[in-house]
Amino acid sequence: MAILFLSPSDSSAEWLPELHRQLPDREVRVWPDIGDPYDIDYAMIWRPPAGVLKQLPNLKVMLSLGAGVDGVLSDPELPDLPLVRMVEPGLTEGMTEFVVLQVLHWHRQMEAYRAQQRDGVWRQLPQKLARERRVGILGLGVLGADAARVLTELRFDVAGWSRSARDLPGMTCFHGAAGLAAFLAQTEILVCLLPLTEETAGILNWETLAALPKGACVVNVARGGHVNEADMLAALDSGHITGASLDVFGQEPLSPDHPFWSHERVIVTPHVAAVTHARTSVGHLAEQIRRFEAGEPLENLVDRKRGY
Amino acid sequence: MAILFLSPSDSSAEWLPELHRQLPDREVRVWPDIGDPYDIDYAMIWRPPAGVLKQLPNLKVMLSLGAGVDGVLSDPELPDLPLVRMVEPGLTEGMTEFVVLQVLHWHRQMEAYRAQQRDGVWRQLPQKLARERRVGILGLGVLGADAARVLTELRFDVAGWSRSARDLPGMTCFHGAAGLAAFLAQTEILVCLLPLTEETAGILNWETLAALPKGACVVNVARGGHVNEADMLAALDSGHITGASLDVFGQEPLSPDHPFWSHERVIVTPHVAAVTHARTSVGHLAEQIRRFEAGEPLENLVDRKRGY
Repeated sequence: MAILFLSPSDSSAEWLPELHRQLPDREVRVWPDIGDPYDIDYAMIWRPPAGVLKQLPNLKVMLSLGAGVDGVLSDPELPDLPLVRMVEPGLTEGMTEFVVLQVLHWHRQMEAYRAQQRDGVWRQLPQKLARERRVGILGLGVLGADAARVLTELRFDVAGWSRSARDLPGMTCFHGAAGLAAFLAQTEILVCLLPLTEETAGILNWETLAALPKGACVVNVARGGHVNEADMLAALDSGHITGASLDVFGQEPLSPDHPFWSHERVIVTPHVAAVTHARTSVGHLAEQIRRFEAGEPLENLVDRKRGY
Repeated sequence: MAILFLSPSDSSAEWLPELHRQLPDREVRVWPDIGDPYDIDYAMIWRPPAGVLKQLPNLKVMLSLGAGVDGVLSDPELPDLPLVRMVEPGLTEGMTEFVVLQVLHWHRQMEAYRAQQRDGVWRQLPQKLARERRVGILGLGVLGADAARVLTELRFDVAGWSRSARDLPGMTCFHGAAGLAAFLAQTEILVCLLPLTEETAGILNWETLAALPKGACVVNVARGGHVNEADMLAALDSGHITGASLDVFGQEPLSPDHPFWSHERVIVTPHVAAVTHARTSVGHLAEQIRRFEAGEPLENLVDRKRGY
């Protein structure tokens, strides 16, 4: 039996040594060199081409290499097998770093200061303290909760919104469709960390952006599908939204002629907010295989109805 | 009797309402409208012109409006009266925000990503986690300790250096001239939060910058006098130093023709890392006046020999 490693974007050169170290008795095959498909019992996957997993008759468990599984669930022929989300410390840590960086960047008006630097202008701008700045996090899973923890240590006034009710220390929690308007109305810097589902697709649109206070900033580190890009550009150009840090896009790589690249109040990064690191995540994958074979429940199992 | 408010850069329009609110029974005079100099018993000061304080015969206590008192101690005719440093939550909080922002900026290679954005390049760069990045803080007073606290929450590998031995939770502490070389040799992102004294003037020079590992970054939020600017430029241009965030300069405002303005790996901000906010600091000033009049010891009293 063998493990299949299937990712168009993760480097097998990074992953194979770690997989061999932590799963020494397993054979690992790297897609598309599957060998005999009957041999594959576990698949570690990121955005698998549609229909590929269906062709593995003895597959038992699908292990996502990313935190979001929208790129797996989009396969219309996905086998009806357990699918495990990636929850690993390196991914959470990297995401928190990036979220805190972008929130501080807009909070401390760094775009304005960089523009002043280009023009050789020495001018101090009025500045709020973090305790006077309201940050709102869409999505209160593992990633949202960890980002909120550090933002709270920085003394930001943090609130969160999630589909179902949550209670997290040191922050106001809103939930459900009914809670969204009140959440948005009080959010000066909005961070999107939602899973991409039918319910959340396009959640950052003209209506929700207009519900933010004038001058708000947006950080999207979840999925491009959360943003209506035309609406985002219109909200930026109207001046209602002051700035946006966008790490994910409807089409990746972002098209060379996309207006986001050259928009003076948009920070474009190439989907780097958080990546799964082999060195910190193979332990999680090995643990799920051990659990499955010991008859223990899998961790972070995806609920396909819910979409995450 | 009256309080003198003397600052070339703090707005009396911001301070006076707060002073009247928290010290309702005191008269406040704003320099240069001193009135009868015999009336002044307390002076709240920031970079007072040399010789001015000496002309106040009944002055009892000098209260600095800034955390650093080098701009007060430089007055050769400074009266031999108690001088209190500013330690107030708003200043500490603002400094920690700014330090964390700059450390994350260099850690997450944002200069490289902004350059890629300008060129329309979608490319993911190899990235360490914070736990794999060594940050070193020069100066472990109130400001250094608070920045270290949040950097540790972000899981950076934090070390600190101070003149005399300190012991702070979750970090390695170096001290004294003997500990400086070992501290620098292990620091990938260096943050300067030292007071400016005879001992620390020019501490960021060719020799100390060369003692950092190749590719290190520097954040100076203390005083311009800590940096030998020619050495800093040479270290940047040699490639040994990857980048620098500089908020303070030998001459402020920074001269319009200074090479820092246009250096592609220098972030220039106009001395805004942390400012004293009237709304969060008048309480500290009022408390010192109360203590003095009650015969209690003043807090954060400056040791003139030590320089802070």
